[in-house]
Formats: sequence, C-alpha cells, structure tokens
Amino acid sequence: MKCELIAVGTELLLGEISNTDAQMISQGLSELGINVYHHTVVGDNPERLKEVLTIAKSRADIIITTGGLGPTADDLTKETIAAAFGKKLYMDKEQRERLHQRMGARMTPNNEKQAMLPENCEVLVNDWGTAPGCAFYAEGCHVIMLPGPPSECTPMFKYRARPYLEKLCTDGQVIRSRFIKIFGLGESAMEDKLAFLMNSLENPTAAPYAKEGECEVRVTAKADSEEEAYGLIDPVVGQIKEILGSVVYGVDVTSLEEVVVKGLIDKGLTISTAESCTGGLMGKRLTDIPGSSACYIGGAVTYSNEMKMKVLGVSPKTLENFGAVSAETAMEMARGIRKLTGADIGISTTGVAGPGGGSDEKPVGTVYIGLSADGVDKVIKPELRPTSSRQRIRNSSAGSAFDLVRREILEK
Amino acid sequence: MKCELIAVGTELLLGEISNTDAQMISQGLSELGINVYHHTVVGDNPERLKEVLTIAKSRADIIITTGGLGPTADDLTKETIAAAFGKKLYMDKEQRERLHQRMGARMTPNNEKQAMLPENCEVLVNDWGTAPGCAFYAEGCHVIMLPGPPSECTPMFKYRARPYLEKLCTDGQVIRSRFIKIFGLGESAMEDKLAFLMNSLENPTAAPYAKEGECEVRVTAKADSEEEAYGLIDPVVGQIKEILGSVVYGVDVTSLEEVVVKGLIDKGLTISTAESCTGGLMGKRLTDIPGSSACYIGGAVTYSNEMKMKVLGVSPKTLENFGAVSAETAMEMARGIRKLTGADIGISTTGVAGPGGGSDEKPVGTVYIGLSADGVDKVIKPELRPTSSRQRIRNSSAGSAFDLVRREILEK
Repeated sequence: MKCELIAVGTELLLGEISNTDAQMISQGLSELGINVYHHTVVGDNPERLKEVLTIAKSRADIIITTGGLGPTADDLTKETIAAAFGKKLYMDKEQRERLHQRMGARMTPNNEKQAMLPENCEVLVNDWGTAPGCAFYAEGCHVIMLPGPPSECTPMFKYRARPYLEKLCTDGQVIRSRFIKIFGLGESAMEDKLAFLMNSLENPTAAPYAKEGECEVRVTAKADSEEEAYGLIDPVVGQIKEILGSVVYGVDVTSLEEVVVKGLIDKGLTISTAESCTGGLMGKRLTDIPGSSACYIGGAVTYSNEMKMKVLGVSPKTLENFGAVSAETAMEMARGIRKLTGADIGISTTGVAGPGGGSDEKPVGTVYIGLSADGVDKVIKPELRPTSSRQRIRNSSAGSAFDLVRREILEK
Repeated sequence: MKCELIAVGTELLLGEISNTDAQMISQGLSELGINVYHHTVVGDNPERLKEVLTIAKSRADIIITTGGLGPTADDLTKETIAAAFGKKLYMDKEQRERLHQRMGARMTPNNEKQAMLPENCEVLVNDWGTAPGCAFYAEGCHVIMLPGPPSECTPMFKYRARPYLEKLCTDGQVIRSRFIKIFGLGESAMEDKLAFLMNSLENPTAAPYAKEGECEVRVTAKADSEEEAYGLIDPVVGQIKEILGSVVYGVDVTSLEEVVVKGLIDKGLTISTAESCTGGLMGKRLTDIPGSSACYIGGAVTYSNEMKMKVLGVSPKTLENFGAVSAETAMEMARGIRKLTGADIGISTTGVAGPGGGSDEKPVGTVYIGLSADGVDKVIKPELRPTSSRQRIRNSSAGSAFDLVRREILEK
C-alpha cells in the first residue's frame, strides 16, 4: 500500500507554521507498514488542490489530507475532494446536532458547513474540536480527511484514522508496537549491538530511531489479537533490554523526566535541584510532568558564585581552589540543596554551556553533575562536544542528571 | 514568480524528522514577494525524484531543493536533477580543495562526490558544512539546491540562495524587512488596529503574523539600496509603534527574554527569580540568552509551601489566609528572592498550571506574578484560558513576567 499525505493551508506555504502533522502521521503509517512516498502541501486554492489530487490518485492507494475542514470560506477541502471523486456533499444531521451541542450560542450558519460530508463516507467523529473528519473508498483509492490543528489531528489520527487503516492492511489482524527508550548510547553503537537480533526478526520487527541526544527502538507485531501481538513483542523487548542493559530507561514512556518523577513517587522519595549551567531547565523539565509536586520540593538556580555560597553553602575555598565548574563545587551544590530542602536526593549541575566562557583547561561543554543522597555522594562528567550548541549542551546536561537520578532510584 | 520547494529524504517520509527547512525558506520567499504554491517531499529514490521534478518544472518558475547532497550512496539529488535538465556533472576543483581542507584526514573517496556539480552552475559555497549547494537556469526554470540539515540549510538560504533570488525578482533592487514584536495583544485586535494603515501601504508593505502567545508585523520594502529600503521602512515602523503603543517589545529582536536581558545589562541592573508554577522555566529562558550571567544572579524554585517559607520568607499566615496561589504570596515571593539575592529586581510566579489542581475559586490558569524593586511592589494576574495546556499556561506566565520586567526597566 502506497500513501500520499496532502496538507491544505496557505499558512504552511507562507511559512507561518510547520507541517508537523506530516511527521506524526508518517510515524504512525510506518508502524502500520504502509509506505509513504510523497508529502504534498498546497494552499487554500480549489484549482490547485484539484490538480494535486489528480496527481495523488495516479500514484497512491491511500490519500490522507490534513486541514481545510473549518467553517470559513477558505476551508474548501471537503468540497474539492468530493468533486474530484464525483461525490456530492450531504448535511449529516447527527454531526450538525453535535456541533450545536458543542458550540451552543457561538454557533453561526457558517459553522453548520462543517457538518456537510461526502455521501457514503465513514464519519470520523471529532472529540477534540468542531470539524468532523471522514473516510471513503472511490476510484481505487482510500481517502481520509483530518482537521489541521495538531491538537485535533494527532488524536483524530490515532483514534479514528489508524483503526480504519489497520483494517485495510491486516485482513482483520491488529498491529501493535512498543517503544524502548535509551539514554547514553549513540545510534550507531546501538545498531551494532542489535544488528544480529534485528536481522533475524520477522514478526515482530524492530526499527531503531535517533532522537535528539537519545535513541529509541520500535518493536512492532501483527497478530490476530492485541494480546497475541504483545505476546510476540514482549519477549523481544526483553531480549533487547538484556542486550543493551542499563542504558534502557523505559518502555512506552514519554521522557527521562517522566521516569524519574514516577520512580521517585513509587519509592516515596523527594528531590531538589541546584542548577548553575542549566539555569532552571532541570526544574522546568521535572515540573513539565503533571503531578511532579508529589516528589519535587524545589530548587535553587545559583548562577553567581555568591549565590552558590549564600544559598547552597558552597565553601569559598572550594570555589577558589577548584573553580565554579568543578567536581568539588558540583558535589557541594548537591549536598547544599539537599540540606536546605530536606529532600532525599539533591542533584546539581555546573558547567560551561557556551558559546563564550570556555578556556583551554575548561572548554565549552565541560559539565559536572553532582548527586547527594543518604550515604551517597556521586559526581559525573558527561561527555559533551565543545562544538555543540548552548541549547544542546544544557539539554544533555539535564538529561545526564536525570539519568544519574534514575540509576540511583533503581538501587534504592 | 512561482516557486516549489522539494525536500529529498526518506527520513522525512518515515516521520523521523519534520520538514522545518520548508517553513524557514517559505518565510524568506514570502519576504521577497515570491509565491510558493507547493511543498513536496520525496524519498531518496531517483525514479520518484525525477517524476516529482517533471511535475515541478511544469508548474513553477523556481525550484528549490533541500537534502540529498551528502557523500553517501543515498544522496542522489544532484545526479538526478542534472539528468532531468540534460546537464552533466563535473568535478569542481576549488570545491574539492575546500573539502580536503575542511575534512583533512577524515576525507574518503566518497566525500569527493560532494564536489561534483552540474555544468555551468553558480556554486553556492557552504561555510557551515561539507556539501556545497548550487544554482542554475535551464528550460525556463531556476533551480537551487541546498543541503538538508537545518544548521546548514538556514545560513545557506540566507547568505547564498536569498541574494541569488533577490537579483531575479528585483531588477537589481534590494528587498529588506524589519520585524516588529508584540506581546499582550491578540492577533485580531492587532489587525483591527493596523488595518487602515496596512491597506494604505504599497512600498513598504506590512504583514501580520501570529506566533505562539505573541504577534509580529513584518514591514518589507524594495529599493535601489539597503539604505533607501530602510529609509522607507523605518517611518512605517515608527507609525506602527505609535499605533500599538507599549505592547511593542522590540524591533528585529529574537525574544522577550533577549530584550529583558539586554535592557537589564544596558541599565546596569540585576534580576532574580522566584518560581512556583513555572518551576524553573523563567530561569531557563533567561539563561537561554548567552551572556545572561551579567544580569541574572539566580533564583529559587519553591514548589512546596515549606520552600516558600524557608527560602523566600513567605509568612505562614499569608499562605494560610490567601493560599499559595494568591497576589499576596506572589508579592512576598518577589520580595523574598530580592532580599535573598540582593538583586535590583525580584520577579515571581505562582499559579495553577493544570491539568489537575484547579478549583471553582482558583481554576486552572489562575496565575499571579509579583515584581519587587526599589520602591516598587507590583502584582499582575494575566488572563489565561483554563482550557490551555499546562505547557501553554507556563509559557504565557513566564512571558507575562518578562513583559512586566521589560516595562519596569523602561521606567528606570
């Protein structure tokens, strides 16, 4: 099965927004084993959309469109696609009723347009916005229309389009995946370690991905039931975890900080942060996780030496002898924040994030991370490239700190 | 002039990365007055790339490609495009020499491939990576090839492709723009205020943009020289600033935090942060700016009530009588961090970022921001929607806090 994604929206062609829907949908299709050969973006122009559809029909078995389902005069996707496939639009009374319930007094005649749908289509009910999506089969092609805003498109793909597509490409079977998350191992090193296993697999299959500063392996199986699919997947997940060891920080989790927050809450532990080069980023990432207040007490951003001494009690001699960017300072910062807050774990960062501030002895990318817990004092110096951007160095530093905490929790 | 962007890369079709180059280039073309009618993404497949080029030739005057210029066997953009336009590739000795100099001992025979270029092209020298770009005119079409990685594509567009395009569409004139940045005014309110002026303009023109939680107006002029272009632009920028007033936070600046950091340094002032609901985000955003250590002393992330009392000296009575999310607590936090750090300005946030933790009295999105400076005590309550995401509420809170600081600096 070959698929083409068509995004409709002049705002994409003006560069006002990026076509992130295409990435999200492509990932989902790759998981289903559907080949995507083209992404196309076209403006809110019926003539050009029609031409683009003619081309897509000639080269794809599945066309998925995003955008142009809204209530304004610009929104012409449904009208144009229906016409291109010789279909009429009808007013779907159930969808109109939903719109009235959702919008109440804000409902205008324009809004009713959103309930007009191509005849004989499958309605894809939109629980995340006003415009319903739809799907139909015509002229040898499956056509699926989804709304454009990512906050609607993402769940509409996952909960509406994906089940429709799964039926198409599995003869009633299901496709399920698990995602193994890895921190602290490069992509090529990971591929080397897994090559033998990955090449020997048929169902499930395993595919590696590189993310910023992290890696991921997707294990995907096709089976008669969800239970059976996971029955095929889970032993392979186990094998991969065994091969890779402790660099695997989770399966089917969102981020390292999520694992840290859940791990702390599970074990009834609390944490606090002492940040220099990350400047608040560790606190920000921990508190990105809803419910983090159950384990995160707070922290100090001690950008100046004075703050390191005054708030965290770092000794003036340590700063003088070893400098602010040193293992010794990192350790005293971690101890200091733990003492101040009474948290079970204190974690600290100090380093040179660049682009300025580097020296021969301590080039940009020199970072120390300290961890203090009951009977535990640890400092690590992650390997960071001096040529990395300030943003990358700060993000990797926070990542390394979270990984250190994760490993500490495992030992508790 | 009609332009089509073609991105070449299977990793885009697999959803491993997003086509951010297309957004960046589209913005630049919009500034030059060049219409973009299509974005196309195709894999590293010469047959399909050739088909895509045939279609693009038939509907565009300018084709800009990104990706596929690298040293590996997958990288076939130059070969395929040259063939599609009946051109041969030649070894460019100057570029080969540059490659040797840049890569030194890491140079392999494969890498030499990158110096092969279509005959009679204009070489676009790449100072940001190894693969040179190129441009040529053939069969009624201008073709420009740029490398794919955004860290190379962005400067290659700005400093290489843009001047080439400017010549095409201005008969030797130049096109210049200024960007007016706005915080605290909605997009439609801004458009209402500027409609009369914008409609009356011809050269320069003005175009509004909505960014996440902010707005922007681009003023663009065409003229015989850069000086003349800015001579046309600057009075209109002045008019827009007068119409919009103090919601304009800067012209040709990157972000609100950049303006705050520069403003503080200019006036010799220092700042510190006391964060509850933003959890470190204010510190993170301030320290995103290189050189921020000249004005940012540090801060406290006081997620728990105990930390608010212990580190910032918020009174237990205030917390008991008004709650942690209150104007009174915000004020005491700002005063407390200023006292602790000795900074000229203390800024604080406390609120309900959601999704949990809201109540009838204090729903999700209830946020207070406090500012303390010499003789100044201020609290504001930004208007945030309870339906916004946790991320949005936290970002807007930090933005509102920075805007409050910016206004305070102006008065100093």
